[in-house]
Amino acid sequence: MRKLILSLALAGSLLSAQAQQALWGGSNIVSPQTNDDNSVTFRLFAPNASKVEITGDFLPPVTVDTPRGPQQSAGTAELTKNNDGLWEYTSSSLSPELYSYSFIVDGIRINDPSNVYQLRDIATITNIFIIPGGQADYYKVSDVPHGTVSKVWYPSETLGMNRRMTVYTPAGYEKGDRSYPVFYLLHGSGGDENAWPELGRATQILDNMIARGEAEPMIVVMTNGNAALQATPGESSAGLVPPTTNLPRMMDGAFELHFPEVVSYIDSNYRTIADKQHRAIGGLSMGGFHSMHISKQFPDMFDYVGLFSAAVTPRNGSDTGVYSDLDGKLARQFGAKPALYWIAIGDKDFLYEENKAYRKYLDDHNYPYIYRESPDGHIWKNWRIYLTEFLPQLFKK
Amino acid sequence: MRKLILSLALAGSLLSAQAQQALWGGSNIVSPQTNDDNSVTFRLFAPNASKVEITGDFLPPVTVDTPRGPQQSAGTAELTKNNDGLWEYTSSSLSPELYSYSFIVDGIRINDPSNVYQLRDIATITNIFIIPGGQADYYKVSDVPHGTVSKVWYPSETLGMNRRMTVYTPAGYEKGDRSYPVFYLLHGSGGDENAWPELGRATQILDNMIARGEAEPMIVVMTNGNAALQATPGESSAGLVPPTTNLPRMMDGAFELHFPEVVSYIDSNYRTIADKQHRAIGGLSMGGFHSMHISKQFPDMFDYVGLFSAAVTPRNGSDTGVYSDLDGKLARQFGAKPALYWIAIGDKDFLYEENKAYRKYLDDHNYPYIYRESPDGHIWKNWRIYLTEFLPQLFKK
Repeated sequence: MRKLILSLALAGSLLSAQAQQALWGGSNIVSPQTNDDNSVTFRLFAPNASKVEITGDFLPPVTVDTPRGPQQSAGTAELTKNNDGLWEYTSSSLSPELYSYSFIVDGIRINDPSNVYQLRDIATITNIFIIPGGQADYYKVSDVPHGTVSKVWYPSETLGMNRRMTVYTPAGYEKGDRSYPVFYLLHGSGGDENAWPELGRATQILDNMIARGEAEPMIVVMTNGNAALQATPGESSAGLVPPTTNLPRMMDGAFELHFPEVVSYIDSNYRTIADKQHRAIGGLSMGGFHSMHISKQFPDMFDYVGLFSAAVTPRNGSDTGVYSDLDGKLARQFGAKPALYWIAIGDKDFLYEENKAYRKYLDDHNYPYIYRESPDGHIWKNWRIYLTEFLPQLFKK
Repeated sequence: MRKLILSLALAGSLLSAQAQQALWGGSNIVSPQTNDDNSVTFRLFAPNASKVEITGDFLPPVTVDTPRGPQQSAGTAELTKNNDGLWEYTSSSLSPELYSYSFIVDGIRINDPSNVYQLRDIATITNIFIIPGGQADYYKVSDVPHGTVSKVWYPSETLGMNRRMTVYTPAGYEKGDRSYPVFYLLHGSGGDENAWPELGRATQILDNMIARGEAEPMIVVMTNGNAALQATPGESSAGLVPPTTNLPRMMDGAFELHFPEVVSYIDSNYRTIADKQHRAIGGLSMGGFHSMHISKQFPDMFDYVGLFSAAVTPRNGSDTGVYSDLDGKLARQFGAKPALYWIAIGDKDFLYEENKAYRKYLDDHNYPYIYRESPDGHIWKNWRIYLTEFLPQLFKK
């Protein structure tokens, strides 16, 4: 065998060199680089470019005119070029948060080739970075016990397909024999079963809050809320087709009506405490809409309800009956005194007025709820914060 | 409630418009577009660019000079610009396969903004597309029963950390009570527990081959083979640091020695058939190296061994004893007559000579194995093919 080893030594030494070839252009550009004062330096090697800009949610937003009036948009800043063709920009000191950005090179939006960390939001992919500390420490992977995150397919008879969901089971689930409460956490329009675990950092938030004792250990179920789809783009038999929000069955009642199939699948296949007192439902935007309508359609199913920047008003085109008799259904739901009905929205959210009207309706009927108003608009930053505020209130009865 | 609905109708109608804003620039550029003859058209809107190229593994490779001699590299082709600033290129007819590509705009490598489907290989992110048919149909998500894919953390006492792995359980696992054989599937240098399920399409391959009856239903465990790491980049407490292949504990025996902890965790937490006859181990490149050394270090553990483009020769710097007494350990392993010892490599692989020498060693000792030689080099295309060839041979005894 000694002869074998000797004869192979040369070939073997090539192994790590080969792997190195896959590294980005062999460059050692560091971008983004967080500096001691929490400013961040971004770098791009682009010797032939005439103009390089950066756009991201860490820059002051700008107001742009649109067909439906002025709207806030992510700000931009220009990078400056040194003699070697390396462009650079350093931000102001940033507060702890998860931020996203892209470069714009001569008008083309590109991702930072030095940063492999990206998130997809519908059809846009942006780079991300985290300024640690405070709230943002919930979003980091910490050295704490980690739950298991599974992509699970369940059969839906009413929707006529197998469908994919993300299931979080808390650390220790596999080894133990205890049963857990379940939180159904729903995404918004254009999202899917990957939205909360990726954009929402739900996995990290749950691991960290459970480890700190700030949230009860629980199973968290993140469904796909578009009743026409099996799964997130690329993970269904539709193939690698472009993501779209033009979905035929987004808010037509079909998803709400099929929801007991999800609950039944979870109760049959996981160690759950299968009663109303140990079930919560909450979601953002369309997911808040779904949470509102599912929880009133099935008033004995969920004791905890969270509406994060929720749409409230039924859309057209449903003949499922889900959106009929709202008065009667809400009366039944609130008559059964839910343990928590939590409404949160940003003061710049385009659904703010819709929520205000809904709160007035609840007030007029003396239906109790807890209201939380935050700054900013219809953005993931708010939804991550709302999740960290909602979780500690669950299953405390 | 009718008044509420009316007053909110306007706000509600904004919801889908809002979501649309996230779509890429509102453009309707289709790229890539597979044509009837299986040629593919790529498009990029870049009115200010002087030159746009595409590079990908569907183009004929070119030979480039490197410090260690001529090497094959992905070919490039130029896109042509029309009057509207849209650049376009149409390939020749392509055979069924999963392909990857990037654009190069005035020297900067970028991803196709019209295609959200990407894969990360170490620190390089490229777009992908699939030409269906034949072998490539194993790589598609099909309308078949789907297994569950879980990200699971297990404790390693010998490595002193919690570590993450990907576990595939076959369709029906949750509902049933039967026990399954287990295949441990290992990645290469620079990879991690996401490599086989993402670059390797292992999830789709398993779903499709099990559904066709070409592979036994089995649990498949995809570990992280770098003993210095907890998890794939971005999923460990190291934070969002750049991926690297400069890892201190890649092939020093530590991963091999800790492997019984993985097997023990799986046997304790899943319904396995916990004996040698129902365990397989296989891997690519460094994972083939690990499979070789683990299977001979623990000769009573695995009855099926697969070396895909495997490194074979021990590297320097180990004092764990894993690489000592190779002759004796291989004699014990083959003395126990493994059900399958399968070696596959491409005829252009840089590890070809190393494998040839190892096969000669096995021949000289009359140790039986099955050998498969394919075209091409040290590339994922080959490893996906090898997986589809290895799986049908498992657990048939």
